[in-house]
Amino acid sequence: MGNSFGKLFKITTFGESHGKALGVTIEGCPAGLAIDEDFIQQEMQRRKPGQSKITTQRREEDEIEILSGVFEGKSTGTPIGIVIRNADQKSKDYSHISDKFRPSHADYTYFEKYGIRDYRGGGRSSARETAARVAAGAIAKMLLKAKGISVQAYVSQVGDLTLEKNYQELDLNQTENNIVRCPDPKIAEEMITLIDSVRKDRDTIGGVISCVIQNAPPGLGEPVFDRLHAELGKAMLSINAVKGFEYGSGFEGVKMRGSQHNDSFVKEGDRVRTTTNHSGGIQGGISNGEDIYFRVAFKPVATIMQDQESVNESGENVTVSGKGRHDPCVVPRAVPIVEAMAALVIADYLLLAKSDKIQDI
Amino acid sequence: MGNSFGKLFKITTFGESHGKALGVTIEGCPAGLAIDEDFIQQEMQRRKPGQSKITTQRREEDEIEILSGVFEGKSTGTPIGIVIRNADQKSKDYSHISDKFRPSHADYTYFEKYGIRDYRGGGRSSARETAARVAAGAIAKMLLKAKGISVQAYVSQVGDLTLEKNYQELDLNQTENNIVRCPDPKIAEEMITLIDSVRKDRDTIGGVISCVIQNAPPGLGEPVFDRLHAELGKAMLSINAVKGFEYGSGFEGVKMRGSQHNDSFVKEGDRVRTTTNHSGGIQGGISNGEDIYFRVAFKPVATIMQDQESVNESGENVTVSGKGRHDPCVVPRAVPIVEAMAALVIADYLLLAKSDKIQDI
Amino acid sequence: MGNSFGKLFKITTFGESHGKALGVTIEGCPAGLAIDEDFIQQEMQRRKPGQSKITTQRREEDEIEILSGVFEGKSTGTPIGIVIRNADQKSKDYSHISDKFRPSHADYTYFEKYGIRDYRGGGRSSARETAARVAAGAIAKMLLKAKGISVQAYVSQVGDLTLEKNYQELDLNQTENNIVRCPDPKIAEEMITLIDSVRKDRDTIGGVISCVIQNAPPGLGEPVFDRLHAELGKAMLSINAVKGFEYGSGFEGVKMRGSQHNDSFVKEGDRVRTTTNHSGGIQGGISNGEDIYFRVAFKPVATIMQDQESVNESGENVTVSGKGRHDPCVVPRAVPIVEAMAALVIADYLLLAKSDKIQDI
Amino acid sequence: MGNSFGKLFKITTFGESHGKALGVTIEGCPAGLAIDEDFIQQEMQRRKPGQSKITTQRREEDEIEILSGVFEGKSTGTPIGIVIRNADQKSKDYSHISDKFRPSHADYTYFEKYGIRDYRGGGRSSARETAARVAAGAIAKMLLKAKGISVQAYVSQVGDLTLEKNYQELDLNQTENNIVRCPDPKIAEEMITLIDSVRKDRDTIGGVISCVIQNAPPGLGEPVFDRLHAELGKAMLSINAVKGFEYGSGFEGVKMRGSQHNDSFVKEGDRVRTTTNHSGGIQGGISNGEDIYFRVAFKPVATIMQDQESVNESGENVTVSGKGRHDPCVVPRAVPIVEAMAALVIADYLLLAKSDKIQDI
Repeated sequence: MGNSFGKLFKITTFGESHGKALGVTIEGCPAGLAIDEDFIQQEMQRRKPGQSKITTQRREEDEIEILSGVFEGKSTGTPIGIVIRNADQKSKDYSHISDKFRPSHADYTYFEKYGIRDYRGGGRSSARETAARVAAGAIAKMLLKAKGISVQAYVSQVGDLTLEKNYQELDLNQTENNIVRCPDPKIAEEMITLIDSVRKDRDTIGGVISCVIQNAPPGLGEPVFDRLHAELGKAMLSINAVKGFEYGSGFEGVKMRGSQHNDSFVKEGDRVRTTTNHSGGIQGGISNGEDIYFRVAFKPVATIMQDQESVNESGENVTVSGKGRHDPCVVPRAVPIVEAMAALVIADYLLLAKSDKIQDI
Repeated sequence: MGNSFGKLFKITTFGESHGKALGVTIEGCPAGLAIDEDFIQQEMQRRKPGQSKITTQRREEDEIEILSGVFEGKSTGTPIGIVIRNADQKSKDYSHISDKFRPSHADYTYFEKYGIRDYRGGGRSSARETAARVAAGAIAKMLLKAKGISVQAYVSQVGDLTLEKNYQELDLNQTENNIVRCPDPKIAEEMITLIDSVRKDRDTIGGVISCVIQNAPPGLGEPVFDRLHAELGKAMLSINAVKGFEYGSGFEGVKMRGSQHNDSFVKEGDRVRTTTNHSGGIQGGISNGEDIYFRVAFKPVATIMQDQESVNESGENVTVSGKGRHDPCVVPRAVPIVEAMAALVIADYLLLAKSDKIQDI
Repeated sequence: MGNSFGKLFKITTFGESHGKALGVTIEGCPAGLAIDEDFIQQEMQRRKPGQSKITTQRREEDEIEILSGVFEGKSTGTPIGIVIRNADQKSKDYSHISDKFRPSHADYTYFEKYGIRDYRGGGRSSARETAARVAAGAIAKMLLKAKGISVQAYVSQVGDLTLEKNYQELDLNQTENNIVRCPDPKIAEEMITLIDSVRKDRDTIGGVISCVIQNAPPGLGEPVFDRLHAELGKAMLSINAVKGFEYGSGFEGVKMRGSQHNDSFVKEGDRVRTTTNHSGGIQGGISNGEDIYFRVAFKPVATIMQDQESVNESGENVTVSGKGRHDPCVVPRAVPIVEAMAALVIADYLLLAKSDKIQDI
Repeated sequence: MGNSFGKLFKITTFGESHGKALGVTIEGCPAGLAIDEDFIQQEMQRRKPGQSKITTQRREEDEIEILSGVFEGKSTGTPIGIVIRNADQKSKDYSHISDKFRPSHADYTYFEKYGIRDYRGGGRSSARETAARVAAGAIAKMLLKAKGISVQAYVSQVGDLTLEKNYQELDLNQTENNIVRCPDPKIAEEMITLIDSVRKDRDTIGGVISCVIQNAPPGLGEPVFDRLHAELGKAMLSINAVKGFEYGSGFEGVKMRGSQHNDSFVKEGDRVRTTTNHSGGIQGGISNGEDIYFRVAFKPVATIMQDQESVNESGENVTVSGKGRHDPCVVPRAVPIVEAMAALVIADYLLLAKSDKIQDI
């Protein structure tokens, strides 16, 4: 249980950080979609380690291999199997922690749950698993692109350094122009400086990623439990290190009065629009055609380059020493992961909406 | 799609606000659990309208009727069917808005999705649907109680009035002692005054509910997509009016360094414990035996007693007038709903954990 | 687990034979379908007890009540909740077997599985549960009818009395003209005589139901595990007393050579057709547009009006005496159940097929 | 949809006959199970082509590679990813049929469903996909073996050559001693002769596989839709070329009276047993501790070495010529597939049964 996501456009992943490979099976991709392998690989590059001075220096090429489901450049409707070999598979690196529980990692909880654990770099609990999600998300993005829908995420906070501008005030095409993936060049520079200083302190820091989905049609969402934002929230909360999710007005909206918060409807040409968008493009769990936007909170990475007190499997007090190559801040590399998961949700709900009305059957 | 929640302990709901009845089918409740109907009814009373001056004055007795799955006072392992008749079924009240889209309600999105809508009081999109969840949650709570696990929610913010104390500094048994369900009597009083003044303004206001789960065993959670907090988050985001979810350190944790945020492990008697609990009792998506806690943001109720500009199904400009009996603030009545959904998640994950290890099979 | 059937057009049932009521929640019925309550009730009459001298004389009106999901005569896209009250709820009838395991009933297996059982008339294991399926199937049938698809079942064997004619040689509109539901009046008469003589022997007998689905479009089916015939097979095997399922050439096809069995393709007007139909309308698990046909084997009813040796919950030898009012042969009343389950499968697969091709999204 | 099977012990497969590889992800295998790779490979050998003169002479080594989920020889509770590379990937072989619909293959139905098809050897519809099932089934078998449960299938009919003996009269350990996998050496010889003569006629023939599951505990099965035999039936019907399924008395049981068919309960030592087993070890959809047995009908393989009339994608009349290397009869190689699917069902239901009773939670 727990390795699949989605209902019709559905992915199933496998793989540990230091096993032979990661993999993902993508079911439900409609037949006839042109599959651009280069695009998938580009998305992988955005997530891969070693891409800049503020990410882990671990080396993984993260080359994808499509094993099925694509024929003569197009999806065939059958499941698309993709594997990503783990190149940097140095399990010896981890012998020093093989029986120790690293603080705020999943070592202890996996051990309690399964009675056994693959101690090499976190095993299944490692964020390395998200590589498979990015590959699958790239295919979802192609589907959305074919329907004119875009998904764009960016870093909006690092520590207490906050990008105060709204997404509408930003040029999201600038996100990829700097290594921290913040579309405001000035704030980006400050974020990079902050992350770099934290790294030099042998410490880590948290951040926030904002995401905007544009041109999604009205009518996406499955009430009552599978509301569109509930599924987006679950998708985000399933990403490593995520501690919170809010959409539209979010936690700030709590302070507003209904008379301020309500989004008035108006007719704009053929379309019904809203004059404001505190709803974040979703009302009653269903998209209303406005921009869908949300924010995702990431905690500071648990692996720090410092000694920490802990216990081992026998319950003895031990010291866990920081070793290896790790990210001082996870958000720059998490931007494509957020986009991938969002794209998977929207693709899935697009398919689900095909059978809403009797006239469509 | 979308009317079921859970995997093994699973509920399926039906019903509209002004239809004949609401209902829920509860699958997977282990056989032999003593079912206390009075307790279920008590939980219903906590959610029902008309319970105090700061809730809607609509009248619904919300009497449950168990139709199956219980024999001689015990669950039999077969699905428990429950119906709740809608007593206050005045559909004429709604003729004035039958073709109008109320701002920030689901009128427009349901109409776009389904091409047809039950305009009587929101139909399926009404929070009335949560009555069925509370009934099901009461059964989940009985299961948890039998295992020593408690789930307690309370109001921690109304508008910008915030209860600054941590749950550990509060006596959660006082939550039910006031009509706003805030365990701090002084802040409760202020909250009640605020809500009452908002009500007199014919307006509404948002709030935050905090929730604590105690004595859950370590090992609950299904990585990677069905992490315990991802499922809790989805459960909460599926409740009407919810705009955000955070657990443990949440959005505030973003600002911390890893060296501050990490929870050190120590041995305490037989148990492995953590000295702090920024993780909110969940690491790598699996419970670690510490208290699980989270916060849920609710927007101001969309129905206000004021005139608002909108459009109708024909796209014409119309005025929507506030009528009827509505909550000025949703959080007091949402406390049992949050508890119900949390209990359902924990009950489900308890069952899922029974097959984790080969020695348990 | 196990009380739901279907993926998009999905039903969830609850209810025991001697509880207060049976119920079903139907999800995924597309919005805007005209719902004819009279038709549902007619289908219920076809299944209800006491309808003729060769069925049980138990009395149940099996009146349905729609609680949700229908507004102004049309489906709204929200779940349709239906309850059927149990009128004939004489639990005292069953005290004589409260701790005895009736041979070839589910008494022993439910007791082993759940450690507790509702001994009143089989509880959840009673075929009474199928009333809820017939109600749901009636809605699926309306959907299929709107698409020009028909589902027709009939009794083709009782004991060793076999209707040798193929469905093409029969007038299926005559099925309802006799109480055994065999479209050949002469064989029907013989079957009725046979069942009646078995009944007088205080015994029971098995039978076979054949079913034909016409005008289903090509392209329905979800390879590889959810092949159309695999889902039909599961649907049928989930009906009480069913022991076998075969489609197309079935078990007889085993004896054929490939050169005899293969169905040649030809062009007929605009359509690709096959000259024979040993495939039963399904190739590779996907419908090919030809008639879908299959056969379902039902064992003799386990309740006989004779004394039988058995054991009780304490493992003591006991005699189980036949009492009450039971069917001497289940197939006449099972015809609408077979149709209901077949209609549910086809409706579900119709919806699933809406997202097969990129051009449809 | 359709590429996953199982609820807790769940598999998801991908792969086409002439793509790069097949694969399977196995979720829910309890942690701590010793994984014997050699055993998995042995099971693969039983299914692989080219193993005898009565199977296709195609060559595939079907070497499995485990990519995840196993650490230091044991399952870790995380998904087990397995790939099987396609060695014999000669796509040019298939150019002669690239736009033709082979009779009784899935060429036409895939084309109708998806509007595109991988014409190389059937693509996803090829029985090659079952290699992934056998690999997964081998892991399920290890789990069952650890619990003392055995699953044994054998060929009981080829064409009209029928093994009349019951499984109890046979030594099932002899099944692997001949190339047709029939435990009666004399009948096996006749079957081999028959298949060989069919092969020389450039034709194919059908067969039946019987299967017995021993030592399954009572209490497995999930009423009402997921009855144990319904899931077994679906599992079998999802195998290529299967046309029918029956368990226990099956279609023959139809002819019996209830007084003959009912299985009397008796106490035998500590256990409740039945004196006969027409129920096939399953009552009310739940195992009763007796042997579970069933029969599966396979049609003659559609590919014959003869010219056949058909149409192509443009609707033109064409001749399809038999070419390549194919099985004259599928049943000898299908024995391990039947066992694999049966083992997967039983393993899954074993896990599901862990949460049946409150005392087990």
